Amino acid sequence: MAGPINHVEGGTITTAKGFKAGGTYVGIKTFTEDKMDMGLLLSDTPCAAAGVFTKSALVSPSVTVNRETMAAGGPIRGMVVNSGIANAGVGEQGYTDAKEMAAVAAAGLGVKAEEVFVFSTGVIGVELPMTLIKQGVEQIELSDDGGNSLARAMMTTDTHTKEAAVTVNVGGKEINISGVAKGSGMIHPNMATMLCFVATDAAVEQDFLRSILPDIADSTLNMLDIDGDTSTNDSLVVLANGAAGNAVISAGSADADTFRDALMELLVQLTRQLAQDGEGATTLIVAKVEGAKNIADARLAAKTITSSLLVKSAVYGADPNWGRLIMALGRSGAEMVESKIDLYINGVCIMESGKPVPFARDAVVALMRGDEVTFGVNLNLSDGQATAWGCDLTEEYVVINSAYTT
Amino acid sequence: MAGPINHVEGGTITTAKGFKAGGTYVGIKTFTEDKMDMGLLLSDTPCAAAGVFTKSALVSPSVTVNRETMAAGGPIRGMVVNSGIANAGVGEQGYTDAKEMAAVAAAGLGVKAEEVFVFSTGVIGVELPMTLIKQGVEQIELSDDGGNSLARAMMTTDTHTKEAAVTVNVGGKEINISGVAKGSGMIHPNMATMLCFVATDAAVEQDFLRSILPDIADSTLNMLDIDGDTSTNDSLVVLANGAAGNAVISAGSADADTFRDALMELLVQLTRQLAQDGEGATTLIVAKVEGAKNIADARLAAKTITSSLLVKSAVYGADPNWGRLIMALGRSGAEMVESKIDLYINGVCIMESGKPVPFARDAVVALMRGDEVTFGVNLNLSDGQATAWGCDLTEEYVVINSAYTT
Repeated sequence: MAGPINHVEGGTITTAKGFKAGGTYVGIKTFTEDKMDMGLLLSDTPCAAAGVFTKSALVSPSVTVNRETMAAGGPIRGMVVNSGIANAGVGEQGYTDAKEMAAVAAAGLGVKAEEVFVFSTGVIGVELPMTLIKQGVEQIELSDDGGNSLARAMMTTDTHTKEAAVTVNVGGKEINISGVAKGSGMIHPNMATMLCFVATDAAVEQDFLRSILPDIADSTLNMLDIDGDTSTNDSLVVLANGAAGNAVISAGSADADTFRDALMELLVQLTRQLAQDGEGATTLIVAKVEGAKNIADARLAAKTITSSLLVKSAVYGADPNWGRLIMALGRSGAEMVESKIDLYINGVCIMESGKPVPFARDAVVALMRGDEVTFGVNLNLSDGQATAWGCDLTEEYVVINSAYTT
Repeated sequence: MAGPINHVEGGTITTAKGFKAGGTYVGIKTFTEDKMDMGLLLSDTPCAAAGVFTKSALVSPSVTVNRETMAAGGPIRGMVVNSGIANAGVGEQGYTDAKEMAAVAAAGLGVKAEEVFVFSTGVIGVELPMTLIKQGVEQIELSDDGGNSLARAMMTTDTHTKEAAVTVNVGGKEINISGVAKGSGMIHPNMATMLCFVATDAAVEQDFLRSILPDIADSTLNMLDIDGDTSTNDSLVVLANGAAGNAVISAGSADADTFRDALMELLVQLTRQLAQDGEGATTLIVAKVEGAKNIADARLAAKTITSSLLVKSAVYGADPNWGRLIMALGRSGAEMVESKIDLYINGVCIMESGKPVPFARDAVVALMRGDEVTFGVNLNLSDGQATAWGCDLTEEYVVINSAYTT
């Protein structure tokens, strides 16, 4: 019997057994010298690996290297990440640097270059300072509770780390699925500007892991929108080392759905954390659409609400300006019939069958002043449903992004 | 011989001969009482008419009424517009009110209801105050130079009117093409939150006018992005009354291209004015893409640049952060090869064949502090080209839109 999915208080990527991590400051991020800017993750044993990468036509060579590593299909032992510079938009040198960064990290970790993923996030168009990176690898001390250091080393404009872990019982064994992520601008469906690393001590067949990850990403990270932009570097990678000692989970095995649900839940938690910490954000926005013609329509409708600047601005002002929800739904591309639409703000019905419902405006304004605003939409057409996450748009977003490199 | 297209200094919609306009304040816009909020346009004689309307799935019933009027195909004499309330999201009452508003305006103008277009722009979800609207029609005085009053009566968060006129010689006759428009939020390709009315005294066959308008809209107003949102009410309408006395222009006639070019030029001017006055904007952004695989790709690439929040924020900060151009191009969906891309900021080459070019940063920052920033992109693949217009993202946009109805 599969048990419930439990959240681990204070969980981070090294909550999963058999993983070590660490981070250091090597001097790449001159604008935030108090933060770490380089990190490592190591599994004690070889891992099955799956990944989803940016859909941008212009990608960082680091992503290219990881795609090649993924395609080779061999076991993975670890990863290296730097923040501050994205290793993108630098011509052929970017590929050379990404390969070298993986090789240097592998040497430091005592594994092979083809067993290491390499990630960079930060400013586009600047070459990686390879000397600093080589020094950095030697400085990093790995530990069983080093997940927080890795999370810190990934941050760019993030104001805090994103870390979570869940546990679930599969076949009598307690498995951990744990992760870290970073935002927080250039975030939009089709993979956010975002790095998300997941480690699990479950034994999972690699083909199965790779088969379930795209849909999980589509339901979680790809339903996240901070500012409509998509980075050249977005990556979600999952490593599974089997340290929990469970029977290998594969397609059709008894615990396949349990594992899938637990991985989904972990990514929902990380997605919420990313949305909450969107650049300049003060309020988490959740859009729940049901009754759509199908899931694709539900996703379109939900994402259009959370990505609308006018909706985001209204949330910032705690303004129940539901006309903007109608506008967003209308342009979403999802099929709808105006006279069937029901709308809710934090559970309060404000439109029923396409007509405004009188509501206690002051009460709804007060609800919207909280940390989380939920827009509920029932299109009353069929059974498609989806959830999207986003954040409000504030003056602070503009301030952050009008002076990022200057 | 077709002469050059001349811009008319101080031109407005009544620059075209045989058109009268006027506006008044009837009390719909309580939040900006110094502005007009209702206007009328009348042609002395029946007009050929063409229109392009919002692609939103949820449209104002006023748009529905205009589509019906357009489909009936009869000549048009005038139009009525109010600002402050959009007549959208109000259930069946919206259609009843739109029909009545057209009828009331027609009675005031001394024409038939089916000869009048009806437009509303403003807040969604509030019913039109029909008593005020009926009173308003009686208050409006029409005049040959009333175009500016009509332009003022359309404004919502616009800070100034958008008006332009061009003249060109067709077959020995000087014709005028003139227009007014309003923005300035909820503006995005697929028709902006935007009303744009064009009047011409040229004699133009209705079928020809309707055949050329969609592509002209796709090259001008649909290449405008202020905030990514699309309104329920967006409309572009052209009326041609023939007062210039030219031979009727139709498909294949000698002056067809001249007329098309002049109408395009008028709409470019109005599009630029709309972009310049985007909510909170301080800088006009122009993205010119050439060398794309085709026009569709060029439009995608150009629009993605002007609609990127990160690009818009960088322009606000006069920050030549061209990495964000690479990011926007990459996610645009247009076909591209990184090693072929050339980038320019206000004419200064900053990337050639996919590699950064050293440039005098201070000089480019100084250029970006001007009123207009032009991003030039050559994808060097084929001959597709397009121009998009937008504006920077400022704290003021957030302030305006976080307190619009409250």
